[in-house]
Amino acid sequence: MTRPLALHPDRLFPADPTVRAIARSLYERVKDLPIVSPHGHTDPSWFAGNEPFSDPASLLIVPDHYVFRMLYSQGIPLEKLGVPTVDGSPTSTDSRGIWKIFAENYHLFRGTPSRMWLDWVFAEVFKLDVILEPETADLYYDTIDAALKTDAFRPRALFERYNIEVIATTESPLDPLEHHKAIRESGWSGRVVTAYRPDPVVDPEARAFAANVRRFCETAGEDASSYAGYLAAHRFHRARFREAGATSTDHGHPSSLTADLSPDEAAALYARVLDAPTAAEAELFRAQILTEMAGMSVEDGMVMQLHPAVHRNHNEVVLARFGRDKGGDIPTAGEFVRALKPLLDRYGNDPRLTLILFTLDEDVYSRELAPLAGHYPSLRLGPPWWFHDSPEGMRRFRERATETGGFYNTVGFNDDTRAFLSIPARHDVARRMDCVWLAQLVAEHRLPEDEAHDVARALAYDLVKAAYKL
Amino acid sequence: MTRPLALHPDRLFPADPTVRAIARSLYERVKDLPIVSPHGHTDPSWFAGNEPFSDPASLLIVPDHYVFRMLYSQGIPLEKLGVPTVDGSPTSTDSRGIWKIFAENYHLFRGTPSRMWLDWVFAEVFKLDVILEPETADLYYDTIDAALKTDAFRPRALFERYNIEVIATTESPLDPLEHHKAIRESGWSGRVVTAYRPDPVVDPEARAFAANVRRFCETAGEDASSYAGYLAAHRFHRARFREAGATSTDHGHPSSLTADLSPDEAAALYARVLDAPTAAEAELFRAQILTEMAGMSVEDGMVMQLHPAVHRNHNEVVLARFGRDKGGDIPTAGEFVRALKPLLDRYGNDPRLTLILFTLDEDVYSRELAPLAGHYPSLRLGPPWWFHDSPEGMRRFRERATETGGFYNTVGFNDDTRAFLSIPARHDVARRMDCVWLAQLVAEHRLPEDEAHDVARALAYDLVKAAYKL
Amino acid sequence: MTRPLALHPDRLFPADPTVRAIARSLYERVKDLPIVSPHGHTDPSWFAGNEPFSDPASLLIVPDHYVFRMLYSQGIPLEKLGVPTVDGSPTSTDSRGIWKIFAENYHLFRGTPSRMWLDWVFAEVFKLDVILEPETADLYYDTIDAALKTDAFRPRALFERYNIEVIATTESPLDPLEHHKAIRESGWSGRVVTAYRPDPVVDPEARAFAANVRRFCETAGEDASSYAGYLAAHRFHRARFREAGATSTDHGHPSSLTADLSPDEAAALYARVLDAPTAAEAELFRAQILTEMAGMSVEDGMVMQLHPAVHRNHNEVVLARFGRDKGGDIPTAGEFVRALKPLLDRYGNDPRLTLILFTLDEDVYSRELAPLAGHYPSLRLGPPWWFHDSPEGMRRFRERATETGGFYNTVGFNDDTRAFLSIPARHDVARRMDCVWLAQLVAEHRLPEDEAHDVARALAYDLVKAAYKL
Repeated sequence: MTRPLALHPDRLFPADPTVRAIARSLYERVKDLPIVSPHGHTDPSWFAGNEPFSDPASLLIVPDHYVFRMLYSQGIPLEKLGVPTVDGSPTSTDSRGIWKIFAENYHLFRGTPSRMWLDWVFAEVFKLDVILEPETADLYYDTIDAALKTDAFRPRALFERYNIEVIATTESPLDPLEHHKAIRESGWSGRVVTAYRPDPVVDPEARAFAANVRRFCETAGEDASSYAGYLAAHRFHRARFREAGATSTDHGHPSSLTADLSPDEAAALYARVLDAPTAAEAELFRAQILTEMAGMSVEDGMVMQLHPAVHRNHNEVVLARFGRDKGGDIPTAGEFVRALKPLLDRYGNDPRLTLILFTLDEDVYSRELAPLAGHYPSLRLGPPWWFHDSPEGMRRFRERATETGGFYNTVGFNDDTRAFLSIPARHDVARRMDCVWLAQLVAEHRLPEDEAHDVARALAYDLVKAAYKL
Repeated sequence: MTRPLALHPDRLFPADPTVRAIARSLYERVKDLPIVSPHGHTDPSWFAGNEPFSDPASLLIVPDHYVFRMLYSQGIPLEKLGVPTVDGSPTSTDSRGIWKIFAENYHLFRGTPSRMWLDWVFAEVFKLDVILEPETADLYYDTIDAALKTDAFRPRALFERYNIEVIATTESPLDPLEHHKAIRESGWSGRVVTAYRPDPVVDPEARAFAANVRRFCETAGEDASSYAGYLAAHRFHRARFREAGATSTDHGHPSSLTADLSPDEAAALYARVLDAPTAAEAELFRAQILTEMAGMSVEDGMVMQLHPAVHRNHNEVVLARFGRDKGGDIPTAGEFVRALKPLLDRYGNDPRLTLILFTLDEDVYSRELAPLAGHYPSLRLGPPWWFHDSPEGMRRFRERATETGGFYNTVGFNDDTRAFLSIPARHDVARRMDCVWLAQLVAEHRLPEDEAHDVARALAYDLVKAAYKL
Repeated sequence: MTRPLALHPDRLFPADPTVRAIARSLYERVKDLPIVSPHGHTDPSWFAGNEPFSDPASLLIVPDHYVFRMLYSQGIPLEKLGVPTVDGSPTSTDSRGIWKIFAENYHLFRGTPSRMWLDWVFAEVFKLDVILEPETADLYYDTIDAALKTDAFRPRALFERYNIEVIATTESPLDPLEHHKAIRESGWSGRVVTAYRPDPVVDPEARAFAANVRRFCETAGEDASSYAGYLAAHRFHRARFREAGATSTDHGHPSSLTADLSPDEAAALYARVLDAPTAAEAELFRAQILTEMAGMSVEDGMVMQLHPAVHRNHNEVVLARFGRDKGGDIPTAGEFVRALKPLLDRYGNDPRLTLILFTLDEDVYSRELAPLAGHYPSLRLGPPWWFHDSPEGMRRFRERATETGGFYNTVGFNDDTRAFLSIPARHDVARRMDCVWLAQLVAEHRLPEDEAHDVARALAYDLVKAAYKL
């Protein structure tokens, strides 16, 4: 016997009828605003080629580390889930079989945002009206598989149906950006922009760093052997990215450390990191480049994002067999006050800089980030990130950041995802949770209702456009 | 004038009628499930000898550091509370007098879990119907004292009345386990098992460590002078504990640090810690043994528990006069991501290992523990521990751990207590708070109600039995 | 079209009608209790001279770093807000112009406690009945300006209208306390006491430290070249402060570190810090003096307060141009367990010591502070401090500190402010939020309602008087 799947119109709203009514009224006016997605990891080739997605598992399970890491945590081998191996040794290619394993273990996602996003995709996009479980696995598979073969489920059609005003992808400076070029030249009206993510040429501990830097400088026509050439190559590629629509840069560093070395020190450090840097030298180089990037942002107006403090690829066994980004990235404690000081001493009061800070260490919301953003003109707080891109994560962010940082030092929502299908679901969760927070302020007579409507709109639409200059 | 004591049937449920009704309905189906207590500190001699408990103060105040530390924090000397001194210098033996001090200060426990547990014991076990205060101190004393003299209040009778399916105690490898043997041979049907807590032979900073290790090896018939002999002694005693019903080991370490030394390094380190180790050597040895214990768990199937990051016996004056475990243990910041890596690199992907992690640093729930447990097949999250074994502590645990770790990487409830009388009260608080959390998810349309019933049962009963192999 | 400004009588109370009714009933009995303000930064010259406040901007904006830092964070130069420069270079003196900028940006304070405090001042003190916005800026300015010219708005009249039983200011030992003397000799009945804040002569990294110490010893008639003389000077000035009503000392340190050096070590360290101390020596000296201060508190009964872990004047550009206390103080992570041990080993069990701990790192509420205060007789927890002096900050404090520390190891509320006008609003927020917390406990059957009334009164009035010996 199947069980009905229905998205409740009041989902995520508190049970209290007073608060719920206010939340509903706030949400009513923001729910249909266009989606502005300033930071994410969708693949621009989808929109360039507009090819249909191949099959349910390849679309919804194999590439989604939120999904397969949870299954793996309960003992299901990644091979059975079709996750490709580094050496090409076989893993499942049986899309329907993978789907069945997923259906058998769908209970593992109870209480997680993945469940909420997936149910939205099933109900709203594929019009399924029963809950996923072993009994309905085939129905699901067949329904989704059939839909994906139709034009209405090609990337561009979904983009339009999803009411996306603009979406940013993220590329390495080594990327030729040919998909973005193809999109622009195709005549399609969808706005897909890139973002400058220079980690492969900034992090001396990145794989093939020196070779990356060489190629990075060569394509820019600059001299890789000098720090001046290296910096000029950044300027070249930043300009190239801006031509492809980029308004922002993004930096994923192991820590928030910044530095402000003298030109000579920086040049000497550059020479060392190209060779065989110590961990400390690598850290200092990353720190120095953050400050250089801030300086270039002051020049060229690109908004800077900092995503620090993740221990990437913590699981060596999984890394060796399956490669990077397999659900084994684990947050570590963050520190911003001392770490950012060199950069802030140099550029923190410059109105031309916007530096958006993210964290996975929630304790710093109230301790460090809100006080910093509530003072420095250059700083803004990014939305709850990654593991906190969830109802409770969003609630804690507003509870802990608002009183000191205010609403207007935040920048709306980022979906930060490669799971294209669920993008509207993610924005919807953010809009709902922001309305819940505002409704609570209104119900407790902490904010007049008319002002709450203004804020709801700002959080859903205005702030992100302004902060990211989109 | 006395005031009535009555346990409200809806206690701990939110005031909101919608959420309360759902919580009540979830709780209704789990409240009478048997108690599975996989980790605690009850004294097996109680169940072996089945002697009556002596008097109210000796049962409920003198041994309960939650109770006497709060009184001490407000200036009441421990001597007046009957806490025994190390050197045998006199402390109060006036049970009724101690009880009166307790009654006069019962207001200090307002808002604490101790108040809730104690009121449950008073109302439910001793059928008292007025609140404890100076005016009712004698009534309380007389009622409890009289009850304790009856057979219905002997340990085994309470065990049965409490519907305990199985309870684990915790013993050192130096313990002969004769009480467990006596229980098994007595023909009594109650299931009391031990757990292997090797800290006295693992922590080089423990009192009499070298002597402990000698005795540990001797009783195992192994050579204490070699690391191989030491490890073999662990295997011997682990097997001995398994015969006494143990399914788990427990490790209380100052940090979560693990190490994976080469056999030669480990052997050399062992030699040093038997002599006069530095603090760093002691820490490294504890770290190495955690990994050895994980390896043995892979072999013998014992579930491993890690309780890290407490500064034990922080108060030197109290330690010198009254000894260990006198309410002066204070948590410190925890770190798991780097600390566990050596162990996880070696055994983290092995499906035969279950490592249950506890913390007193709530910030790591969302930052480190949920991401780790939501990825590694070997890891599970223990319930909120010690200071967090409380309504708000439990609420924060579910709020912060569920979205990333899910429900199924948690392992139900531990009472972790020596306060035998209140064990059902503690499990009841956990069941209520889990139902409250689930009810909120249901009321906010984040989880269908039928699935919430499944989860409530899993949290109250199924998960703990599975995780601990009980 | 203007919008009405009205303070809702149920503001801050939860929407749930059951909880709200209980909160209202608890609040009803505490709302009119006199204000006891044991720690703050009002200027004693106000009460000594009783001169009228000059104008709206100088009273409410220019000196309030909560207000101008938020405006600055959104790009408004401090010069335009009339914040004086260090070198006397010009900033706006146009009070009405500053007020207009404030009105234009009043939306930035949505969701912040400043909004709540300011609205209370506008509505309750100045009887304004429309919301501040550009259209009402002149009305506001004229109303406030006119009121300030009347006797009813002079400092002493406000003090009396505010029902302040006693207020403490904070002075350096270098302060002659002549304003306090003038107040006492004036015959006015208002009780204004000082508090001993010796940071300028304790922190070797403070500006002009050596000169401060010289003057500190000279005014005490002690020998600045010897540590004994320095300590004697503390005793002298502490006694002088007690004569001016002080019952407490206050210590704002970069960390909680304490030390317990031998007299010789301490004397040698003193000699070094007077010269050119290293950072480590400065830190150790501050640590040692905390323990010395605890010892003096044992002697003279002064209550000791520790406000640690703020990176002061983080923004170098703002510091250089506008000086200290300009909204650029940023919290850092706190640690108390190891840091306080030397002091606690020496004096922690002495019933004559009261040491009140504050933190800006909320994570330590449950991890360190509540366990410490729930054990040591000398320790108490200060209320949520600074950035946490807010509805959500107060909620988190009670949620995280109560279960382990109880209510009676806390000390009521501190407004800690120089914003005299809003003092009642701040105490009112604290009383309301404490009543909300208690109402929730009552509604969830965790505390009988009659006991909640007792606790509400203790939190609003009794505990602060007892803890601070006022």
